Amino acid sequence: MLGRSYDREVCSAARALEIAGERWSLLILRNAMFAGMTRFTDFEQGLGIAPNVLATRLEGFVAEGLMETVAAASGHAEYRLTDKGLDFKPVIIALTEWGDRWAAPDGAPIAYRHSGCEGTVGVHLQCGECGTEPSLEEVVARPTAAMALARRRRGLG
Amino acid sequence: MLGRSYDREVCSAARALEIAGERWSLLILRNAMFAGMTRFTDFEQGLGIAPNVLATRLEGFVAEGLMETVAAASGHAEYRLTDKGLDFKPVIIALTEWGDRWAAPDGAPIAYRHSGCEGTVGVHLQCGECGTEPSLEEVVARPTAAMALARRRRGLG
Repeated sequence: MLGRSYDREVCSAARALEIAGERWSLLILRNAMFAGMTRFTDFEQGLGIAPNVLATRLEGFVAEGLMETVAAASGHAEYRLTDKGLDFKPVIIALTEWGDRWAAPDGAPIAYRHSGCEGTVGVHLQCGECGTEPSLEEVVARPTAAMALARRRRGLG
Repeated sequence: MLGRSYDREVCSAARALEIAGERWSLLILRNAMFAGMTRFTDFEQGLGIAPNVLATRLEGFVAEGLMETVAAASGHAEYRLTDKGLDFKPVIIALTEWGDRWAAPDGAPIAYRHSGCEGTVGVHLQCGECGTEPSLEEVVARPTAAMALARRRRGLG
């Protein structure tokens, strides 16, 4: 989607952004996963997005396997999220929580709820070893063996 | 940063993307928060990003309060993350986890660790009411009173 702009990056976040980091991409996915949108015209009207941009994004999502097209009984083509597309939900929720904390002076416009009990759902960092929720400062990034392999392949180290 | 492209959106995720959703933005923040980069030349060389684009992004981060500039003892200006900038960490980790699951055939190149115990840190959705980790399908979005207020102000409903 980003035309391999981040190709020299050995980074899964960069890979995710190549696939869903273009302008409008994450908001299209948001409307698919939380507003249940499936039709081109619904995305177009709901987002106020130029149809050529929307068409490019949706085609890209199908090519990358985030969506699949289904010929609905109505005759309209539907764009439906796959598991791979739905899996961006935690990213959308994390972005929303940031915006709620720093850019929502009138309060959060949307609440994420657990459909089972209507409790509020939040994103939490958790340590798999000690079970605590570390502070942001306590979360560090360590290169793995896969990083070393990728760098050797690229002649980087 | 996105020139208010998403201005009609009453959505905290859209607000977050306006501030950090431009090309390279999240990768610059990633290098600041996980590689400890502070200097223009470090970001430029580390990312292979055009200097004019990098300058625009860093100026935007300072304007939005995600970074502040500090005149370091070395004489070089340093760009340091504020709490507002550091708070994008869960977004970066969520993006990384998506990429690890769907776009890292050789395995995750980076592991996020808890600096206290070196345990693996992951992003989890948790229900504040029942305490369980809901499935992605079980997380739904509900408009709040703040949404109703915002829509009335805009004459939308």
